[in-house]
Amino acid sequence: MAGNTFGKKFRITTFGESHGYSIGGVIDGCPPNLTLDFDFIQSELDRRKPGQSSIVTQRKEADIVEFLSGIVDNKTTGTPIAFQIKNNNSKSADYDVYKNVFRPSHADYTYFKKYGIRDHKGGGRSSARETASRVVAGAVAKQIINDVSITAYVSSVGSCKLDKNYKELDFNLIETNNVRCPDVEVAKAMTELIKSVKKKGDTIGGVITCVIQNVPVGLGEPVFDRLEAELAKAMLSINASKGFQIGSGFGGTEMLGSQHNDYFNMDGSTKTNYSGGVQGGISNGMDIYFDVAFKPVATLLQEQPMLTTSGEIVNVMGRGRHDACVLPRAVPIVEAMAALVIADFVLMTNPNIP
Amino acid sequence: MAGNTFGKKFRITTFGESHGYSIGGVIDGCPPNLTLDFDFIQSELDRRKPGQSSIVTQRKEADIVEFLSGIVDNKTTGTPIAFQIKNNNSKSADYDVYKNVFRPSHADYTYFKKYGIRDHKGGGRSSARETASRVVAGAVAKQIINDVSITAYVSSVGSCKLDKNYKELDFNLIETNNVRCPDVEVAKAMTELIKSVKKKGDTIGGVITCVIQNVPVGLGEPVFDRLEAELAKAMLSINASKGFQIGSGFGGTEMLGSQHNDYFNMDGSTKTNYSGGVQGGISNGMDIYFDVAFKPVATLLQEQPMLTTSGEIVNVMGRGRHDACVLPRAVPIVEAMAALVIADFVLMTNPNIP
Amino acid sequence: MAGNTFGKKFRITTFGESHGYSIGGVIDGCPPNLTLDFDFIQSELDRRKPGQSSIVTQRKEADIVEFLSGIVDNKTTGTPIAFQIKNNNSKSADYDVYKNVFRPSHADYTYFKKYGIRDHKGGGRSSARETASRVVAGAVAKQIINDVSITAYVSSVGSCKLDKNYKELDFNLIETNNVRCPDVEVAKAMTELIKSVKKKGDTIGGVITCVIQNVPVGLGEPVFDRLEAELAKAMLSINASKGFQIGSGFGGTEMLGSQHNDYFNMDGSTKTNYSGGVQGGISNGMDIYFDVAFKPVATLLQEQPMLTTSGEIVNVMGRGRHDACVLPRAVPIVEAMAALVIADFVLMTNPNIP
Amino acid sequence: MAGNTFGKKFRITTFGESHGYSIGGVIDGCPPNLTLDFDFIQSELDRRKPGQSSIVTQRKEADIVEFLSGIVDNKTTGTPIAFQIKNNNSKSADYDVYKNVFRPSHADYTYFKKYGIRDHKGGGRSSARETASRVVAGAVAKQIINDVSITAYVSSVGSCKLDKNYKELDFNLIETNNVRCPDVEVAKAMTELIKSVKKKGDTIGGVITCVIQNVPVGLGEPVFDRLEAELAKAMLSINASKGFQIGSGFGGTEMLGSQHNDYFNMDGSTKTNYSGGVQGGISNGMDIYFDVAFKPVATLLQEQPMLTTSGEIVNVMGRGRHDACVLPRAVPIVEAMAALVIADFVLMTNPNIP
Repeated sequence: MAGNTFGKKFRITTFGESHGYSIGGVIDGCPPNLTLDFDFIQSELDRRKPGQSSIVTQRKEADIVEFLSGIVDNKTTGTPIAFQIKNNNSKSADYDVYKNVFRPSHADYTYFKKYGIRDHKGGGRSSARETASRVVAGAVAKQIINDVSITAYVSSVGSCKLDKNYKELDFNLIETNNVRCPDVEVAKAMTELIKSVKKKGDTIGGVITCVIQNVPVGLGEPVFDRLEAELAKAMLSINASKGFQIGSGFGGTEMLGSQHNDYFNMDGSTKTNYSGGVQGGISNGMDIYFDVAFKPVATLLQEQPMLTTSGEIVNVMGRGRHDACVLPRAVPIVEAMAALVIADFVLMTNPNIP
Repeated sequence: MAGNTFGKKFRITTFGESHGYSIGGVIDGCPPNLTLDFDFIQSELDRRKPGQSSIVTQRKEADIVEFLSGIVDNKTTGTPIAFQIKNNNSKSADYDVYKNVFRPSHADYTYFKKYGIRDHKGGGRSSARETASRVVAGAVAKQIINDVSITAYVSSVGSCKLDKNYKELDFNLIETNNVRCPDVEVAKAMTELIKSVKKKGDTIGGVITCVIQNVPVGLGEPVFDRLEAELAKAMLSINASKGFQIGSGFGGTEMLGSQHNDYFNMDGSTKTNYSGGVQGGISNGMDIYFDVAFKPVATLLQEQPMLTTSGEIVNVMGRGRHDACVLPRAVPIVEAMAALVIADFVLMTNPNIP
Repeated sequence: MAGNTFGKKFRITTFGESHGYSIGGVIDGCPPNLTLDFDFIQSELDRRKPGQSSIVTQRKEADIVEFLSGIVDNKTTGTPIAFQIKNNNSKSADYDVYKNVFRPSHADYTYFKKYGIRDHKGGGRSSARETASRVVAGAVAKQIINDVSITAYVSSVGSCKLDKNYKELDFNLIETNNVRCPDVEVAKAMTELIKSVKKKGDTIGGVITCVIQNVPVGLGEPVFDRLEAELAKAMLSINASKGFQIGSGFGGTEMLGSQHNDYFNMDGSTKTNYSGGVQGGISNGMDIYFDVAFKPVATLLQEQPMLTTSGEIVNVMGRGRHDACVLPRAVPIVEAMAALVIADFVLMTNPNIP
Repeated sequence: MAGNTFGKKFRITTFGESHGYSIGGVIDGCPPNLTLDFDFIQSELDRRKPGQSSIVTQRKEADIVEFLSGIVDNKTTGTPIAFQIKNNNSKSADYDVYKNVFRPSHADYTYFKKYGIRDHKGGGRSSARETASRVVAGAVAKQIINDVSITAYVSSVGSCKLDKNYKELDFNLIETNNVRCPDVEVAKAMTELIKSVKKKGDTIGGVITCVIQNVPVGLGEPVFDRLEAELAKAMLSINASKGFQIGSGFGGTEMLGSQHNDYFNMDGSTKTNYSGGVQGGISNGMDIYFDVAFKPVATLLQEQPMLTTSGEIVNVMGRGRHDACVLPRAVPIVEAMAALVIADFVLMTNPNIP
């Protein structure tokens, strides 16, 4: 119930905070005899790591994943796969300014109230650093379900939006720009916006869209453990996320049933896909697509009023190296969480893969 | 993993489909010595039942809940509380037209593909009737956490929207109209819209807003089992829901951090509440508020192309008594699912209530 | 965590106490398209029911199982199978003598201390009546794994023991006598012993042996969820059980490794089977066999000192219709719990049966 | 479902095999603000480690535990506590003789059949080395429930038995001899027996008794998750264990109810304690005591017939450094598993300790 485990059949338990020896996780339920591509895992982690471009935090974290167990001769053995990423560069001095204050809209206050302990160094488990472990597990999950393709991209930053259906986009362009938007012109505008916000020490939110293709029919359980319900939980478990919509989403609430219904082709596929690939909680084989809303990061490099641990309000100038916009680095995290959900359902249906 | 159980410490397992003897559930983990108000439970169920007003389905279902165990002299004993609602009026003849076809955007097709069995009578577990069991469990949950108030209402039907913050509304007006919108004028417009859609045999979607007040600080687990993640899962597990947003939601993605941050008062409350009462996955004591998007109901009383079980497309005229708009009846369901989530977290923190 | 659910993939949640409307359960995770033999289910229940012979309690309980959901045309649909057994003959007046006292070695006292509520009528959930629901679920489980045969029998009553290896026995004789011992002579001696104990208003314990044959290789998870660990939990969850041993058990502790090791045949089977069909927590395809120890029933028809709720010791004459020896009726319960464990592991390995 | 996690509220997930980088685990659900005694944790681990005396394996494993997360200034933070024990001395060459054969009564064969992979180096997860992680977690658990005392000792080796009730023993003598038996004379006889068995390259089994004192009333859930059921599962999950009995156990099956019933004192304690501290699945505050049977270790330093991977029987001389009797080193493991069970139930009842 402590909440650091995700999944039923394919389970990941994560651990670690930035001021300890390492962060990491244990993957339980990975099928045996899977030859793992470790370069791919590291490359996924590199997509998430700080300092990769001028528009994200310049914090340097090597973020090298080391595997501790569960693998022989590059093959999984069916036993738990533990891994760690050592904490090399935890400039916790940067956090000294927060020692006696709670930052606004940050987990500082709620953690203290819940646990009765003030762990001001680097945000503890609420630190985005925890998500590195999810990316590692997601990269393993992707290799279990390698017929399925999972692609996420930034579809808006602030009010700068990519107003195109995913089918009109060239996904090959996503990794060609720092913002991870598959439209070169919109990516430029987003980059400019992030830079201008960053210059002011401010932050900005946005939306990530994720598309899952080539999904088998039949994933998801009716009633509570619906595929869309598990995806929603997965996405809302990512730091700073505030919303999730699948298929037609909030926009679809304005449609009539006669417009919204996805009429069948003779092969069971549908002419439209307002359902977003899920009907009655179960995948129907069409593309699954959904959006995740991210609020602006709470930590600003501006002076802000904060609450002291003794109950006063003081102005504190923000310090440290933080993202002005979390969206570009959140793209691999969204993909990883989607992969964990899909792999879990696939293994529940067919536990003997590969 | 079969997915018919929700919750960890306060658990509900539901069963039943409309053509069996009864539907119902088993509540496990209810604290002992709680004097239950059975009239309240039945009244919550009445808010969900069909036939309650001219704008919802005219199907007559008595929907009387009977308790089978776990209660002595109106008090809970700490043992499982089983209950059932008998199926009285399952005009399954209405469903005969669907015997050999899959309705578009309906769970017919995915259930068949998953289970290999065609149970055309009344939709099986994907029937909205299953949600009656959730309402019963939610009505028990509400009595465990009776300091907390949970209020849902219809905030849009199609493009007819209630553009007011929940703080401007009088929640006492919600139950004064059939559509369950706390603004009399907007409610009238919504009612007219639903009637006109219904006349055409069509259906329409909308949004329900839910506000949870007087929540203790400290509910929710960091990392995966965040309070907002569990709420998102709960809401996306309701039939026809396609989206969830909490606090500033999708709108907040357009804000700057300096606008979005909720600055503290000296007592730990915040001046604004864009966070929606949750920070780092843990409740901060401010109001929790969120929206749930519902797509238009798939079953139309119009002729539509359907896929036959032998792989042809045929036009079929819809039959049966269905909602033209599911929103008014979904209000108590949203509240019930919210109550299940909050009660579960409360009992994980303090298992000895009351 | 309330503990009324057993299993992971094939799950049973039970409810009910003898003074409520009914007892029953919800089976979740049963595969679809299984044609159920309801006569078999009822016959299993009849093996457990009171009043079936002169050596067990003469309490009359009709114990007719009614299915509420999950079945269409005698076939499972893959949705939850709920069932109930109505409480017809709960002579709770018999329990009035216990209203203000705690019986020795009974759950009365611990339930009161845990729940703060005195539910003296019929023992609440600690009543053996709860096990009827397990037998129903076990009878469904047996039909999922119908290649596997599960046979239990009484191997001792008090010091009257059946000192034969199960391979020397004719299992067809088990149901030919009231005590369910597959040796006619020993059965007679056991019957005499139970009758003499009963005459004195006393009770007596014993041992049940269970043999599971034709088990596939590979069931069970290493480390914590070993096959023998789950069987041990299942058996110790039965009322009045105090011990479990598998394979060579406690006797094997006196052997040398060179005597105890089961040497292989060329087909992977073993020449001896001291392991009891499980190695490293995983089935090896050999017969699984184990013993379960049952203490004598606590409720005597004698005068005994009891603790009053106000803290005094008083002598109370026992009343009611209770078993002098629980063993004969516990045989189908042991089989049912074994079936639940095996079916769960089979479905985890191959979820698509049948 | 992969089975490497134990516990509900206080959870341990273990990982690692002897040929990887490290073994270890993640403890989730440890309360915050607990000052940990790391020397105690290491001392518990030292009780389990190989090479500690002449009667156990002379394999040298440093077994130093390193904590990776969840601790600040020696205090728990409420977040996951990860730890590892590096693999320093995995003379896997010793295992080369087993490369193409399955050892009798060993997990080799069943692992291969289950996972389809032959991981002959050191036994993979079935290696007793995995239990080191349990001892670390148990040592943390003991510090959560430090009012409770948990004491295990060797009560028999082969047919050399300590025929005394635990109340007659001086627990201070347990650690004064290598065999961990609290009777100096019996310990000597056990030591001699182990030495003589070892000289022949053979192995021998035995029984460990465990006593849990000062347990709060009310731990355990009725029906499936009974305290004794969870203890049974915990004990049968230990390598080489074949049996469990609590209170009067198998011996109690020969008693009459009138002899076996534990009559109350006026304070709710009982005059006798045949129940072993548990009634109806719930602790009654009396001492909990139970026995665990261990079979002789399967790996002998003798020539034995083994099955080759190509299906032939060959004689192979055993190699490596193995225990002739696992009992002395299993004592801290039994205690650790008992501590995990008790701490889990304590935290379910009162999650805010300390």
